[in-house]
Amino acid sequence: MAVRAAVAGASGYAGGEALRLLLAHPEVEIGVLTGNSNAGQKLGALQPHLLPLADRVLAETTPEVLAGHDVVFLALPHGQSAAVAEQLGPDVLVVDMGADFRLKDPADWEKFYGSPHAGTWPYGLPELPGGRAALEGSKRIAVPGCYPTAVSLALFPAYAAGLAEAEAVVVAASGTSGAGKAPKPHLLGSEVMGSMSPYGVGGGHRHTPEMIQNLSAAAGERVTVSFTPTLAPMPRGILATCSASAKEGVTAESLRAAYEKAFADEPFVHLLPEGQWPATASVHGSNAVQVQVAYDEAAGRIIAISAIDNLTKGTAGGAVQSMNIALGFPEELGLSTIGVAP
Amino acid sequence: MAVRAAVAGASGYAGGEALRLLLAHPEVEIGVLTGNSNAGQKLGALQPHLLPLADRVLAETTPEVLAGHDVVFLALPHGQSAAVAEQLGPDVLVVDMGADFRLKDPADWEKFYGSPHAGTWPYGLPELPGGRAALEGSKRIAVPGCYPTAVSLALFPAYAAGLAEAEAVVVAASGTSGAGKAPKPHLLGSEVMGSMSPYGVGGGHRHTPEMIQNLSAAAGERVTVSFTPTLAPMPRGILATCSASAKEGVTAESLRAAYEKAFADEPFVHLLPEGQWPATASVHGSNAVQVQVAYDEAAGRIIAISAIDNLTKGTAGGAVQSMNIALGFPEELGLSTIGVAP
Amino acid sequence: MAVRAAVAGASGYAGGEALRLLLAHPEVEIGVLTGNSNAGQKLGALQPHLLPLADRVLAETTPEVLAGHDVVFLALPHGQSAAVAEQLGPDVLVVDMGADFRLKDPADWEKFYGSPHAGTWPYGLPELPGGRAALEGSKRIAVPGCYPTAVSLALFPAYAAGLAEAEAVVVAASGTSGAGKAPKPHLLGSEVMGSMSPYGVGGGHRHTPEMIQNLSAAAGERVTVSFTPTLAPMPRGILATCSASAKEGVTAESLRAAYEKAFADEPFVHLLPEGQWPATASVHGSNAVQVQVAYDEAAGRIIAISAIDNLTKGTAGGAVQSMNIALGFPEELGLSTIGVAP
Amino acid sequence: MAVRAAVAGASGYAGGEALRLLLAHPEVEIGVLTGNSNAGQKLGALQPHLLPLADRVLAETTPEVLAGHDVVFLALPHGQSAAVAEQLGPDVLVVDMGADFRLKDPADWEKFYGSPHAGTWPYGLPELPGGRAALEGSKRIAVPGCYPTAVSLALFPAYAAGLAEAEAVVVAASGTSGAGKAPKPHLLGSEVMGSMSPYGVGGGHRHTPEMIQNLSAAAGERVTVSFTPTLAPMPRGILATCSASAKEGVTAESLRAAYEKAFADEPFVHLLPEGQWPATASVHGSNAVQVQVAYDEAAGRIIAISAIDNLTKGTAGGAVQSMNIALGFPEELGLSTIGVAP
Repeated sequence: MAVRAAVAGASGYAGGEALRLLLAHPEVEIGVLTGNSNAGQKLGALQPHLLPLADRVLAETTPEVLAGHDVVFLALPHGQSAAVAEQLGPDVLVVDMGADFRLKDPADWEKFYGSPHAGTWPYGLPELPGGRAALEGSKRIAVPGCYPTAVSLALFPAYAAGLAEAEAVVVAASGTSGAGKAPKPHLLGSEVMGSMSPYGVGGGHRHTPEMIQNLSAAAGERVTVSFTPTLAPMPRGILATCSASAKEGVTAESLRAAYEKAFADEPFVHLLPEGQWPATASVHGSNAVQVQVAYDEAAGRIIAISAIDNLTKGTAGGAVQSMNIALGFPEELGLSTIGVAP
Repeated sequence: MAVRAAVAGASGYAGGEALRLLLAHPEVEIGVLTGNSNAGQKLGALQPHLLPLADRVLAETTPEVLAGHDVVFLALPHGQSAAVAEQLGPDVLVVDMGADFRLKDPADWEKFYGSPHAGTWPYGLPELPGGRAALEGSKRIAVPGCYPTAVSLALFPAYAAGLAEAEAVVVAASGTSGAGKAPKPHLLGSEVMGSMSPYGVGGGHRHTPEMIQNLSAAAGERVTVSFTPTLAPMPRGILATCSASAKEGVTAESLRAAYEKAFADEPFVHLLPEGQWPATASVHGSNAVQVQVAYDEAAGRIIAISAIDNLTKGTAGGAVQSMNIALGFPEELGLSTIGVAP
Repeated sequence: MAVRAAVAGASGYAGGEALRLLLAHPEVEIGVLTGNSNAGQKLGALQPHLLPLADRVLAETTPEVLAGHDVVFLALPHGQSAAVAEQLGPDVLVVDMGADFRLKDPADWEKFYGSPHAGTWPYGLPELPGGRAALEGSKRIAVPGCYPTAVSLALFPAYAAGLAEAEAVVVAASGTSGAGKAPKPHLLGSEVMGSMSPYGVGGGHRHTPEMIQNLSAAAGERVTVSFTPTLAPMPRGILATCSASAKEGVTAESLRAAYEKAFADEPFVHLLPEGQWPATASVHGSNAVQVQVAYDEAAGRIIAISAIDNLTKGTAGGAVQSMNIALGFPEELGLSTIGVAP
Repeated sequence: MAVRAAVAGASGYAGGEALRLLLAHPEVEIGVLTGNSNAGQKLGALQPHLLPLADRVLAETTPEVLAGHDVVFLALPHGQSAAVAEQLGPDVLVVDMGADFRLKDPADWEKFYGSPHAGTWPYGLPELPGGRAALEGSKRIAVPGCYPTAVSLALFPAYAAGLAEAEAVVVAASGTSGAGKAPKPHLLGSEVMGSMSPYGVGGGHRHTPEMIQNLSAAAGERVTVSFTPTLAPMPRGILATCSASAKEGVTAESLRAAYEKAFADEPFVHLLPEGQWPATASVHGSNAVQVQVAYDEAAGRIIAISAIDNLTKGTAGGAVQSMNIALGFPEELGLSTIGVAP
């Protein structure tokens, strides 16, 4: 029997991607769609790629219209999810694709977001140690940030296996959809095409504490993360190039073994054959993760690289995967590991 | 009961797209994959986005390895399909994504391809008048060219309704995957990014006679087509801007009515609401077609514009749709009308 | 002795390109820069590519700050140039990169812009018949629109030589900078990358009457133009694919001869060798125009294609070229015919 | 009096860029152009953006045709420069844009290139400590690699000032022109557009020892470099994100001061104002370098980021700049700090 799902914030990129995936989910029936500034408009004018929903009209995001659904996906600006979730009651599965409930340490939240901490929900990254168990039967899910998804999957096996020193350096390139649909001059096509540029340099990006949280948990000690995000001239995709000093005694073989073990039974993570490297095009539109790892002996560093689609595995795909676990559906239901390439 | 499908030419773009779609088809089991120059290699090294088939090894394209399948998709260089089809026998459904069997007039074939004509197979564009009937139960399908798919769908309603003069002017922009995967200097990323350029100008493109064939059939008279293809800096998609002089008495209303009638029951063609125009991103990776039409009163011309994904509806999606009809499956089975956007 | 030039609207794309070119002009000294909403900001924050002007502060656009210059370039929203020009007095050379003074027929202006017509200035397309003479010594220049520049240069030789019927069909692809720097959702990188889409279809684009004006003048009769602009996933460049029915007796040779004659002495227009076709990358950042022409005998049409950089030859380069003529400088001074490719 | 310059390897990207710059150089007259596989062809067919040289015919690369020039630019596959240079005699200025003479340590060369070391020439990165002096009057110049240019300029000030520990981590994104013009499947536009991917991971990229050489010289101790290059969907540009552990006592102020001092008199390096970050679009086609630096206190790392055009400052612009110094011309002659943006 299908569950009925509402999407709050259906006019943005995260909401649109959630709908794209939910339309293909055999156990989901799409309920109310909301979008504040676009309330009253047809979805076909805002998300013309979602052909089957072209005539759906967006409602305003109120507790009343969201009531009566089994699942509610929230794609709202940060700070708005708590109030909505509270009104929905404890029996509704609320899947928050925003940041509000990802961080465990209120001090982290306050430092990076400048507002009171709303709480912590089970974290929607099943591939982490203990990740699935935390989601089973849960009625609240905090979907990870796109960068933390890519970075945590690239590096946690090295930390979990005790192979890496507690200082990671991460440079990640993201497609522009990660910056959202609100029009700003620096996100214009004229500005981004043909250009690479960094932002949030020096430790200021809000996804940094989330990476630290995940990697520290895997390592059993506090890991520092130097994180530099860059904007790449492509609509989708994250390529995360991560490294950490190798602990003494690490070899290419022990490293490979740790990654093989970590991902042996993972349906969405593909540890590439040796010599092949991730490419974001290969996971375009899919929930798959490509990972590869190398040991740079001369520099003494472990290099782990992952590619995800920031909107799919990095946001809405991770949300649906987590929903599947929470509701007891097969984890892969409605999700694909096949990229749209070239 | 599933049918077993082989793909000959699995390392190229058309073959890869066929596999992407067949993997999602509930009634198809993927059989042998072949690729001549890449025979012996794993598909994962050649088509890394097709994760579930990563360990499949390509065979050489021989009648022996293709035998024993219910369906064989051919993605071969032109001129090679006839020999393969002959060996497969009359009971195997052969779906040719190449050009060999598209043209009815041997003179057209010889003029544009410079070799003897192999014959004519039922034409895989079900949306054309009489298109479905020709495919039902057929064991041979000639999949249309990508440009003719886009152009014929944009213009045939005007011709079928007797609204357009028999001279069409078409300028179409195609993503680079339409030019194939064989590496050539002018197809390098360095050359195509940031650049638009035409090719095959002046009536020389091989898809021209196919457009003329389709539009003339709809019009009931010989239609001339001035066709200029252009290469656009994107991997996928065709935007076809087509026009023809309006016959006397044409109005915006009569034009709209003709298009509404032509596409009323079409599952894959979406005539956009007035004021909205096609975009290739909206149909990226999907089998949908976006169409819009306008009457330019000052110039006296009908402007009809379509957007397709050249690899999906323009090649492998059209192939699967036609296969569904030929085998008696629901026409939409395994195909999506949802684009991967942004 | 250098002339002193001000640029009003220096924070936008046209103003920025004017500055890029004027910085390289040996007879120009850059004076005041203005920008209304950005007044008070440093140019380095708005146009970081104009390194030598990084510390310049934008003034508000007032007659006072613009006074005292030999030349004033206007890159203002349409409807604002007349008031500014009036205040500058008749001895200042005013080069308007906006639309206000391009059209001769007030009815055209009112139909397409919906406001009273401000007048007509000498038209800055020296390559047109009589074009240079109109600019020599002039103190007012109306810089053509980017599309009309590309289209007029592609087609006027055929009309001037009496080879083409009076109905032209134009489909042009433009880089996104043609749509300006004001942020709008459909111009986001996420939306335009990987996508082609038309706009202003059916005769509504404001550059249409300007094309008709130019081609009709060349033809000596009223030419209709069916014009469809499309947005291409690149920051710069226009590829204009233009065609018209050939008059009786036209041959490939007579056509080629007409184009060779028209461009024989043109420093910026490069009629390509036969068999080679324009590409926007080849003229990226340059004032050059690539043109090629073909006769499609089967369709009975002349196909003329041009490539320009919409910001250079299509806007600020055309402006500087016209300024050179008006001030008696060598026409090519400070301008390049070398594109930045790949 | 102008010098006469030949370019060997004029059909590739480095050779084409050298010609683009030399055409704009007031003291250079362009002599013979060579290109082995393309000998006999017109340059207009191979480099259509170099309009003024369209009718030049490529010669074969022989000592005879290169004789009689004041300067010879070599854009040859590695391993071929020594033989050519030897024949040219000691009075000709030979500027090698290939790798052959960059490395000082023969062991480095042999390890990374697998052939005998040809020697070491004065290194064409004038901004390095002592860099200019080494070039003055020299008749041989080894132009740096594109990545080492970007990385060395980003990091040497921190090392020269004793602020950084001797382990650097570099992740750089390059436009595809860095991979050259020889057509390979993974460089097709269809493959690179919309995709980011790494290559040469784990210390294997040939530019690594060159970075180590430069940074170690600045630091006065052996610096390790973990270098990961990535291919970005753009034709030009390198964004180098570099970091190193900060030594004790480093502050944001001391870091900024070191960079201000290092670049105070540099005509091509622009240390951006605080809060502004490099973008490759800003230096497109120019010889400028944008640099910014930050201190990530939480991670204890210095983050230095640079943007260059890989073909200009990263190859041919650096070559011309070094030629200017060697010949006693003003260093900036014929070179621009203005990018072509957007």
